[in-house]
Amino acid sequence: MQITRAEVNRFNQDKTKNHKDQFEFLKKQLVNKGVAVEAIVQQIQDFQVAIPSWALGAGGTRFGRFSIGGEPSNLEEKIDDVGLIHALTQSAGAISLHIPWDIPGDTEAIMQRAKEHGLLFDAVNSNTFQDQTNQTYSYKFGSLCHVDPAVRAQAVQHNKDVIDIGVKLGSKSLTVWLADGSVFPGQLNFQQALARTQGSLQEIYEYMPADWSLFIEYKPYEPNFYSTVIQDWGTSHLLANACGERAYCLVDLGHHLPNTNIEQIVATLLWRGKLGGFHFNDSKYGDDDVTVGSIKPYQLFLIFNELVAGMADNQANNPPLAWMIDASHNVKDPIEDLIQSLEAIRLAYAQALVIDQAQLEAARDKNDVTLAQEILQEAYRTDLRPLVREARLRAGGALDPIGYCRAIDIRKVLIEERGLETVATGL
Amino acid sequence: MQITRAEVNRFNQDKTKNHKDQFEFLKKQLVNKGVAVEAIVQQIQDFQVAIPSWALGAGGTRFGRFSIGGEPSNLEEKIDDVGLIHALTQSAGAISLHIPWDIPGDTEAIMQRAKEHGLLFDAVNSNTFQDQTNQTYSYKFGSLCHVDPAVRAQAVQHNKDVIDIGVKLGSKSLTVWLADGSVFPGQLNFQQALARTQGSLQEIYEYMPADWSLFIEYKPYEPNFYSTVIQDWGTSHLLANACGERAYCLVDLGHHLPNTNIEQIVATLLWRGKLGGFHFNDSKYGDDDVTVGSIKPYQLFLIFNELVAGMADNQANNPPLAWMIDASHNVKDPIEDLIQSLEAIRLAYAQALVIDQAQLEAARDKNDVTLAQEILQEAYRTDLRPLVREARLRAGGALDPIGYCRAIDIRKVLIEERGLETVATGL
Amino acid sequence: MQITRAEVNRFNQDKTKNHKDQFEFLKKQLVNKGVAVEAIVQQIQDFQVAIPSWALGAGGTRFGRFSIGGEPSNLEEKIDDVGLIHALTQSAGAISLHIPWDIPGDTEAIMQRAKEHGLLFDAVNSNTFQDQTNQTYSYKFGSLCHVDPAVRAQAVQHNKDVIDIGVKLGSKSLTVWLADGSVFPGQLNFQQALARTQGSLQEIYEYMPADWSLFIEYKPYEPNFYSTVIQDWGTSHLLANACGERAYCLVDLGHHLPNTNIEQIVATLLWRGKLGGFHFNDSKYGDDDVTVGSIKPYQLFLIFNELVAGMADNQANNPPLAWMIDASHNVKDPIEDLIQSLEAIRLAYAQALVIDQAQLEAARDKNDVTLAQEILQEAYRTDLRPLVREARLRAGGALDPIGYCRAIDIRKVLIEERGLETVATGL
Amino acid sequence: MQITRAEVNRFNQDKTKNHKDQFEFLKKQLVNKGVAVEAIVQQIQDFQVAIPSWALGAGGTRFGRFSIGGEPSNLEEKIDDVGLIHALTQSAGAISLHIPWDIPGDTEAIMQRAKEHGLLFDAVNSNTFQDQTNQTYSYKFGSLCHVDPAVRAQAVQHNKDVIDIGVKLGSKSLTVWLADGSVFPGQLNFQQALARTQGSLQEIYEYMPADWSLFIEYKPYEPNFYSTVIQDWGTSHLLANACGERAYCLVDLGHHLPNTNIEQIVATLLWRGKLGGFHFNDSKYGDDDVTVGSIKPYQLFLIFNELVAGMADNQANNPPLAWMIDASHNVKDPIEDLIQSLEAIRLAYAQALVIDQAQLEAARDKNDVTLAQEILQEAYRTDLRPLVREARLRAGGALDPIGYCRAIDIRKVLIEERGLETVATGL
Repeated sequence: MQITRAEVNRFNQDKTKNHKDQFEFLKKQLVNKGVAVEAIVQQIQDFQVAIPSWALGAGGTRFGRFSIGGEPSNLEEKIDDVGLIHALTQSAGAISLHIPWDIPGDTEAIMQRAKEHGLLFDAVNSNTFQDQTNQTYSYKFGSLCHVDPAVRAQAVQHNKDVIDIGVKLGSKSLTVWLADGSVFPGQLNFQQALARTQGSLQEIYEYMPADWSLFIEYKPYEPNFYSTVIQDWGTSHLLANACGERAYCLVDLGHHLPNTNIEQIVATLLWRGKLGGFHFNDSKYGDDDVTVGSIKPYQLFLIFNELVAGMADNQANNPPLAWMIDASHNVKDPIEDLIQSLEAIRLAYAQALVIDQAQLEAARDKNDVTLAQEILQEAYRTDLRPLVREARLRAGGALDPIGYCRAIDIRKVLIEERGLETVATGL
Repeated sequence: MQITRAEVNRFNQDKTKNHKDQFEFLKKQLVNKGVAVEAIVQQIQDFQVAIPSWALGAGGTRFGRFSIGGEPSNLEEKIDDVGLIHALTQSAGAISLHIPWDIPGDTEAIMQRAKEHGLLFDAVNSNTFQDQTNQTYSYKFGSLCHVDPAVRAQAVQHNKDVIDIGVKLGSKSLTVWLADGSVFPGQLNFQQALARTQGSLQEIYEYMPADWSLFIEYKPYEPNFYSTVIQDWGTSHLLANACGERAYCLVDLGHHLPNTNIEQIVATLLWRGKLGGFHFNDSKYGDDDVTVGSIKPYQLFLIFNELVAGMADNQANNPPLAWMIDASHNVKDPIEDLIQSLEAIRLAYAQALVIDQAQLEAARDKNDVTLAQEILQEAYRTDLRPLVREARLRAGGALDPIGYCRAIDIRKVLIEERGLETVATGL
Repeated sequence: MQITRAEVNRFNQDKTKNHKDQFEFLKKQLVNKGVAVEAIVQQIQDFQVAIPSWALGAGGTRFGRFSIGGEPSNLEEKIDDVGLIHALTQSAGAISLHIPWDIPGDTEAIMQRAKEHGLLFDAVNSNTFQDQTNQTYSYKFGSLCHVDPAVRAQAVQHNKDVIDIGVKLGSKSLTVWLADGSVFPGQLNFQQALARTQGSLQEIYEYMPADWSLFIEYKPYEPNFYSTVIQDWGTSHLLANACGERAYCLVDLGHHLPNTNIEQIVATLLWRGKLGGFHFNDSKYGDDDVTVGSIKPYQLFLIFNELVAGMADNQANNPPLAWMIDASHNVKDPIEDLIQSLEAIRLAYAQALVIDQAQLEAARDKNDVTLAQEILQEAYRTDLRPLVREARLRAGGALDPIGYCRAIDIRKVLIEERGLETVATGL
Repeated sequence: MQITRAEVNRFNQDKTKNHKDQFEFLKKQLVNKGVAVEAIVQQIQDFQVAIPSWALGAGGTRFGRFSIGGEPSNLEEKIDDVGLIHALTQSAGAISLHIPWDIPGDTEAIMQRAKEHGLLFDAVNSNTFQDQTNQTYSYKFGSLCHVDPAVRAQAVQHNKDVIDIGVKLGSKSLTVWLADGSVFPGQLNFQQALARTQGSLQEIYEYMPADWSLFIEYKPYEPNFYSTVIQDWGTSHLLANACGERAYCLVDLGHHLPNTNIEQIVATLLWRGKLGGFHFNDSKYGDDDVTVGSIKPYQLFLIFNELVAGMADNQANNPPLAWMIDASHNVKDPIEDLIQSLEAIRLAYAQALVIDQAQLEAARDKNDVTLAQEILQEAYRTDLRPLVREARLRAGGALDPIGYCRAIDIRKVLIEERGLETVATGL
């Protein structure tokens, strides 16, 4: 299914008056405080987040998976689902492929289909954490870190293949997330595993075209439960430095130990010019991969504050960031869930944008902690959803994307189109 | 395959001399300190731990599963594998069935097979965290806590069916672990979900034969990532009290938040006479389900200290505990892994048994913290493996069970018997 | 110093127009959605939080303390400071004394002074975690749990003395927070320590007047670093049940292990009618005792959602709750810090009040997780500060309390009055 | 008081026979397995750990401090106490001074006194986390990171002064632990705070003599509760690299978030040649600073395994490490507590030394996870205390140091010498 702009406009009609009232009232309030509302609306409008190709199906845990029906069973349908989300939100203008789950058959046709939906191809993702049928060597004991050079070579080659696919699609970056690690003390020689991983990554880095970037993810545990080769940003940073200038760290919000100050990591990496990308999600316990902003929205805002301030005063010449939602949808419809994530991301972005950074710096210069907190809370507590809606409206999106989904009962339509038993590749 | 006592004896032969030297030297040392070595060896010998029927296959995570070959594909083969472990360790004298994964076809034959291996049937486990084909209602949104009475009725009926199966096999208890909970704030009405769960459990409790016990497990998260209906021992205890005298709490070592003092929970439940059972495993991060004693062996010892002291001075009349290993085997051969767990359990038990509780109480009475620590560390640091080996030897087990496995290459034999592609039901 | 209503009104004057605009706009929006705005404003206005007598000075850590100047050095000055906060916020209508830090000399005079500020005396707090000069026995190894009956008797007597003081002041409850526990494994006999604590609490409970309540706090660690006698709500609940009907659990937000679902604990205790009181603060790591709402405002909102819904549908007849701020002020002026906490509390309360609980229940009945989240986020994201300000304004408080503090430079005035070197008793 | 070798020998007499029996039995067992027992005993004997000058008094928490009597009230007495511990254990051959708590008055006399006890002066420690009387600027809002250059200059100068003192005493390194950070979001500009800290450290680094090393500690929280400027090893590593070749990271076991894999951090830093020193302690919750090995002895062993293996195969030319105990003594006598820590450290070291690293590597090369675990557990479970005692005995120490303390009632003697009311400077 595809949603036309005319249909969206029709749906918006009886909501527009109330939205405009809210927007104008808010705008007046903000302008009085010196906020450049129009510029901010434009920034929000420009802010696009990639959807991973595997996020459109039902997620699961090791205890099971409950299917939802109408899941996209091939890349074309995945693109359609992202297109649908983008048509409604005007904020999901890219898709991030996961190889080998989403190897395009007919590249031209796939690119054409994406273009029709207004979608770009963001970073491509390799997968060396699962064994594929017909694979020569198993990744049971690691991939890029494996003791056996043949396994490493296979994993490196897979990453090169992914780059090749990405090049054809117009992607400009490769994201490497490694599950490599150990379940038990003694299993791995930490130093050698890290050295081997560095060697493998360097080989992949060298293979990349000159205008590509490499994003190296870190994660403290899961699926390995004793150690992970790239356990934290410090390790990722070591490896990125060892690879070269176009290698960067990638921060996934769920990949941290309890109580980590993630916003400070973001600031540190920006300071070094080594922050490459972001995987959005939220969590209460571990890598829960739940809807962005559903658990710790204030933390999300604080992170955006670092991003906005850091990119505004970008002395280390950090490149523009790659944004992606990396969530799993166990109990909600993925389409609705992703829409909620997108809304939370843009809202946090808007909150960060309205902060008067000069005023904040002035408070810091006097160690006026009370005032610094007031400045952040003022931005966070102000209801900026009218700005987010206005940005969406101007771009041709729906004022109430979830209301739209429900008005036309998207899932029912998809089930009718695709059947109840389809299963999307992915987790 | 089956291992005879004669084969074990033959294998032990050239190891016995060295073992006897170690045992005698240790015994003399301990006897000099007033330890009743012979009684302790007998206690170790009597200590039996159940193996769950689903633990004999390769485990997995949401990211994948790497099979091992030769996995048991039916209940008969699972019993054989437990029998094999028991033949070598003489400490796994029971099997704990998980329904519906292990519904016996011919009950008589199954019982006969278990008997041949010297195995009893321990607690039976229900499963309402996954949907089975042909199931009327889904457990996607809970089972015993579900808002829909029809779903609750189905889940209650399943538990009754499990009891019926257990009765036929000679089991005397039902373990209920609920995945029920919520992934997002707002999803559940906490109070009503708890009330509904209580009602469901009461119905199950009432159905149990008069000589049966109900074990209620708790867990803070996973597979639900915002809340779990029975999130902690306090909730489990509330529910056990609401059910009746033969309802107890079950402690799974991995089901706690970071840094929880589990040994104190054990002591508290013993004090109330409400500790029913134990699921052994180990973990560094969450419910990692790794080999017992592989990560925090000192914690295991401290827990056993509470158990041994508590059962020795059992004023609340706590019943004997049901012991089970609840681990998952992602990178090790399940048979070897379980043997390592059994060894760690018995070793911790032995360490707790040699503590002079009277001396410890005397130190406590003087608030002599240094001495109390010395007493515990003395027990823990003494190498008591000779006692564990002696207990095993006297019962007819192997001095070196893992050495035995490797000497005859058990996995190879099993793969030859069963093939490479078998998959055990379970997680 | 004292702040008159006339001064506050004068200060409000030029802020009132803008506030009224915001309030009216918001009111219209809410009324359109069926929210009973006027009733909610009244509820917010009625919501009063106690300030502990020791919270007006600079807090510290084991590494040091940085004084602020002008700290209140006696109970009279502490009452004045709370009075000042109440004059500005109209939300701090009670003071909670900590004995022996704040034993009133002339009770009548103290009560009169409090009355002039419009303050009631809330729960009184005992202190058996520090040794006082001239104290016979030390609490180094515990108080109500101590192995020595003489120490326990001394600690029980102290609690009785605190009750006596409270009775004279018109308090109606005693809060007991115990630091009792152990720093090392082996130090305490868990079972006996708990039994002794239960005996001590029962003696205190029996001593209380018939219209008094006992609040039992729990905390997992600090100042003891291995175990705490009352480590969690489950233990507190056991003890409250053992004491009697008027014994309740007290939840301090900072007294939980990482990732605890506190809102569910609140719901569970309300379900049992055993939630007595609340200590507000916020934290990122442990019992950090920082400003309410400064780290996890969404969690605070979720807790209030349980409180509001639970008290609206109060089947277990839970009594009205005792609210107190329990924070420490290391880098901010305590007066400003407490004002920020009060604002955050009332804001979260307002957010919970605007939730349409019936609509939420309807979503839950359909397992419409997306919608349940939308309902909560709609309430949370709406900027309800105009309701909070309106409630404050109607009660005679300042529209901008912190602005007021700064306009008259309260700290400077206090330093002039009291000097730079005063030190408030407390932590 | 001072303990002579003759007294120690006399005390050892009736314990020697039993020790020798144990040692010889163990030695035979180990030699049979190919362990170089004599070399290992020598390595243990050579392993010396520094005691910080402030660790000889009673520690405390923000809730209070319970004094012990007989605390050393000046540097001379602190040296005496360390000397006493060293006389008994022969493993505490150095003292680490904390300035300004321990500025030597007469340097020559102090050095002479240390020499008499056989003590060296290890790393000197600066303190910019507390304000000293007569200090011009306060460190309330940071020191090396402070927004005000005058405060930074003061803090840098303090570090230079500490170096000057250290040079006189023969120290060769400076340890910098910063409490700098923020309590609330917004308080600090993360990037600029880090940049300023880097600048300050560079200035200190440049001031150091050419044969000195700089150790940079990291810590995630406390006393600041939102952020710490050097929050993790990654940040410490950045700063060490920015300073120069002789700047290294210092790992304090208690300075990590829950569940951190510290042994992997150790391995990573060794791989980079950037591990400078170690602060030993243990903890269950945060920076609890309790006795080494009292909570997680297996983790301690795993860390030593990395250290031993890493230094044996030291391709990055990491310098010898500086070892120090950094613990706090709230409920135990500091002298006994430190002796327990020293014993735990040497035991873990011994356990790591007996591992056959070649055998371990062979297991890793085959991904034989079971065997790798067996190898580690074999080393850990073997009771190696006879090796530790033998090393102590050969060096002239006591077979049972704590028994010695109690036999002569050291604390009583110290109280008689120094009085009950002395308070040691420190935490």
